[in-house]
Amino acid sequence: MKEITRTPIVILNFKTYLESTGEKALKLAKISEEVANETGVNIAVVPQYTDLLRISNEVKIPVLAQHVDAVDAGGHTGSILLESVKMVGATGTLLNHSEHRMKLANIQKMVKRVADQEMVSVICTNNIETSVAAATLQPNFVAIEPPELIGSGIPVSQAEPEVVEGTVDAIHKINTKIGVLCGAGISTADDMQAALDLGSDGVLLASGIILAEDPKKALYNLVSKI
Amino acid sequence: MKEITRTPIVILNFKTYLESTGEKALKLAKISEEVANETGVNIAVVPQYTDLLRISNEVKIPVLAQHVDAVDAGGHTGSILLESVKMVGATGTLLNHSEHRMKLANIQKMVKRVADQEMVSVICTNNIETSVAAATLQPNFVAIEPPELIGSGIPVSQAEPEVVEGTVDAIHKINTKIGVLCGAGISTADDMQAALDLGSDGVLLASGIILAEDPKKALYNLVSKI
Amino acid sequence: MKEITRTPIVILNFKTYLESTGEKALKLAKISEEVANETGVNIAVVPQYTDLLRISNEVKIPVLAQHVDAVDAGGHTGSILLESVKMVGATGTLLNHSEHRMKLANIQKMVKRVADQEMVSVICTNNIETSVAAATLQPNFVAIEPPELIGSGIPVSQAEPEVVEGTVDAIHKINTKIGVLCGAGISTADDMQAALDLGSDGVLLASGIILAEDPKKALYNLVSKI
Amino acid sequence: MKEITRTPIVILNFKTYLESTGEKALKLAKISEEVANETGVNIAVVPQYTDLLRISNEVKIPVLAQHVDAVDAGGHTGSILLESVKMVGATGTLLNHSEHRMKLANIQKMVKRVADQEMVSVICTNNIETSVAAATLQPNFVAIEPPELIGSGIPVSQAEPEVVEGTVDAIHKINTKIGVLCGAGISTADDMQAALDLGSDGVLLASGIILAEDPKKALYNLVSKI
Repeated sequence: MKEITRTPIVILNFKTYLESTGEKALKLAKISEEVANETGVNIAVVPQYTDLLRISNEVKIPVLAQHVDAVDAGGHTGSILLESVKMVGATGTLLNHSEHRMKLANIQKMVKRVADQEMVSVICTNNIETSVAAATLQPNFVAIEPPELIGSGIPVSQAEPEVVEGTVDAIHKINTKIGVLCGAGISTADDMQAALDLGSDGVLLASGIILAEDPKKALYNLVSKI
Repeated sequence: MKEITRTPIVILNFKTYLESTGEKALKLAKISEEVANETGVNIAVVPQYTDLLRISNEVKIPVLAQHVDAVDAGGHTGSILLESVKMVGATGTLLNHSEHRMKLANIQKMVKRVADQEMVSVICTNNIETSVAAATLQPNFVAIEPPELIGSGIPVSQAEPEVVEGTVDAIHKINTKIGVLCGAGISTADDMQAALDLGSDGVLLASGIILAEDPKKALYNLVSKI
Repeated sequence: MKEITRTPIVILNFKTYLESTGEKALKLAKISEEVANETGVNIAVVPQYTDLLRISNEVKIPVLAQHVDAVDAGGHTGSILLESVKMVGATGTLLNHSEHRMKLANIQKMVKRVADQEMVSVICTNNIETSVAAATLQPNFVAIEPPELIGSGIPVSQAEPEVVEGTVDAIHKINTKIGVLCGAGISTADDMQAALDLGSDGVLLASGIILAEDPKKALYNLVSKI
Repeated sequence: MKEITRTPIVILNFKTYLESTGEKALKLAKISEEVANETGVNIAVVPQYTDLLRISNEVKIPVLAQHVDAVDAGGHTGSILLESVKMVGATGTLLNHSEHRMKLANIQKMVKRVADQEMVSVICTNNIETSVAAATLQPNFVAIEPPELIGSGIPVSQAEPEVVEGTVDAIHKINTKIGVLCGAGISTADDMQAALDLGSDGVLLASGIILAEDPKKALYNLVSKI
C-alpha cells in the first residue's frame, strides 16, 4: 500500500491486448520491474484477472486489477469479486475505466470496499466535473482521461493542459491526499514531464507502451526525464 | 475436449462464494478430482478467473471459466477475454448464466469464438423456449435452470420433470450431439439419478456442494447412484 | 394486427433523430400514410415513445414502438412498459434493435408478452445464426440487419444477397408464417425490389428516408417498383 | 422552471404501475393538480413517457420524465432522448432512480444537457456519499432514498433522520441552492412534516399515494400539516 502510493507513479494498463496476455503479460511485468528498479520510478502493472496470480508471485512492483464488480461474496457467477483479486496478490484496482464505466452507486460502494480491504483505488474519469464527483468518494487516485484523446497519440498534458491543472486544483480542494493521474495519449518523456509539471502525480497509460515495438525502451524513455 | 464432453457429467460452479475462492477453491478442486478418480464420474470445476491458473495446473479434471465477454483482443479494460482464460488452462466456459445473462448476439458470437478455440461451451437457459433458441447456436451443452428453483433446494428433476424432458426432446430434434444438463436445486443422489432418467446428460450445480458442511461427502453422495 | 402483417411491408424507424421527433415525427407519419394510401403499400411507422399517442391518433397506418423493456407492471421507474405503449395506440414493437440489443431471456419473455397482448413483434438480428435463434421464439417478423451495412448506404440485398436468402430459407424451415425483413442500407426502389426478389417480405429502414432532403419523394421512390 | 423549483415540493413518481398508466395516469395527474390548487403546495407528477403529452396538455402542475438516456439526437433506437420529453411538455426529469441507476459519466452529461435545455434535474441517490458526489454536478435537486427503506412503509425521516440531516448539511456546503428531497417510505402527514423539519425541501414518493385505496385522500393527508 505504501509503495503503490509513492509518486510520481506510472500505472501501466495491460487491457486485453494479446501482446499483454499470458506469457507476454508476465514478460511485460518483468520489464516494468526492471525499469522501476533501474530508474527508481514507481511503476505499477494492471494485467488481466487471469494473469494476476503469476505476475504478483514473480514481480515485486505493485499489481492492480483492471476492475472489480460491485458485488459481495455470494452467488454472482461470472463477476469479479474484490476478495478474489486480493487473494492472488492485487494490492489495488482501477474503477470506472472508460472501457468499463460504472454506475455512481457502484463506484461509491467499491471505493469503500477497496479501502476496507486496505487496497488502493484508482477512479478513472473523463472531465473536471466527474473528477470532482469521484474525488468526494475519497479514492487514493483519480485518473483523468479526456475520451477524445484516448488512443489518439495526442497527450492530454499538451492538448488540454487546463483540464489537468483544473482537475488537480479542484481535487486538492476536496482532499490534498488524493493523487491525480493523467491518462490519455501519454507516451513520451516530454508527455510525462508535462503531466508532472501541471501538478499531476503520474500517468495511467497503455497502448503507447504495450504496443510499442520495444516496450522496455519505450518505458525507459517515458520515465527518463523524471 | 474429449474428456470434458464425456457424460454423465457433473459441472460444479464455484460462483463467488468465499468458500470457493483462493486456497479454498484449490482445495475444492482437489476434492472434486478425488471423487472423479474414485468413482469414474466426469466432474468439471468452474472457479473464478483469478483461480483458473493454479487449479488447472494442479488438477487433471476439466476446468471451465464462469463467463467470457463478447470482445476480441484489444482495448477492453476490465473485460474477460476468451484467450486469457484459455491461456491459463480453461478448456471451456459457461455462457449466459442466470447471474450473468448475455445478449443474444453476444451468445452467438462467443459460442462461435469458443468453438474456434477448440473449447467447450455451456449455455445456461431458463425454460424450453430459450433452450431451443440456444441449441440452434450449436453449443456443446445447454444447461436448463428454471429461475424459480435456483437455490431453492427443490430439484428441477422433481419439481418440473416435464421441463427437463421437453428440453431434452426439443434440443435433440435440433442436434442430438448437444448435451443437456439440469441445473437448479440439485444436491442429492436421487436428484442426480432423476436428472439422468429424464434424459439429461448431467447436472450443473453450486451451493448444494460448495456450501455443504462436508463438500467431499456431498459430492460422493451426489454421484453414488450413477 | 391484420393490417400490420400484410406484406410487402415497409417499416420506417424514426430512431432519435430530431428530424423525426415531435411535430416533425407527426409530419413524417402523415407523409407515410399518404404514400401508403396512394400506392397501396403497407407502411408502418416507429416513432419515439413520447410521440406514439399523437401519431396513432392522427394516422391510420400501423404504429410500432421502438423497444419495450422486459418488465411487468410495477416498480420499474424509467422502463418502457409494454402496456404503456399499447394504451397509446402502438400495435406492435421492435425488439433487439442493433442500437438496443436485448438479452436472450428478455427477448423470449417479451415476444410472449407481446403476443399475449395481441400485438406484433419484430425481432432485429445481425446474421443467419441469430435470425434462426430468434425465429424459434415465434415472433411475427425477423428483421436481419448485418451491422457492417447499417447506415452504409450499401443495401444488404446487394452486398450480401446470400445472407438474405439464407435467412429466409432457414426461418421458413422453422415457421413459414414468420415474416422476414431486410434492414440495412436500403433506400432505393431497386434495393426494395431486390429485397423482395430474394424472398423477404419487406424492409426495415430509417436514415435513407428520415434524413432525405425530401422524405415523401424518397418514400414514393422506395415503393415505386413493388 | 420557476414553479417546479418552488418548495416545499411533493414529487409523485408514477413508476410503471398499471394504476398510473394511460387513463389512470391522467386521472392521477388531475387529482394531483386539484390538491395542489386547493392546498397551495407545489406538487409535480412523473408519469411514463407515453403519458407525458396528454398530461402536460391537461394539467398546469409541473410534469417530469422518469429518466432520460445519455444520448444526443441521432441513431439511438429505443433510447429516451431529452429533447423528445421536452417537446411533449416535460419541464424536468429524474436521473439515476434506484430502479434505473446511471453511470457517473452519464449522470454528469445529462445534468448538463438538462440545464442547457432550461429544464430541472432531480438526481436520486442512496446515501450521504453519493448525494455529495451528485451535488457536485450541480443539479436542481438531490433526492435521497436509502434503498433498504424503499417500499418499506418506514419513512426515512423517522428511521434514519441523521441521514437526511447529514445529506442536507453536506449538500448545502457545496451549494445552498440545491434542493434536498427525502424519498423512501414517505406516506403520511407526519412523515412529510418530519422530512421538512430535518431540513429537506420536500419529498419524492410513489406507492404510498399511487397504490392507496383513495389516492386523492392520501395526497391531501400527506400535505395537510405543511
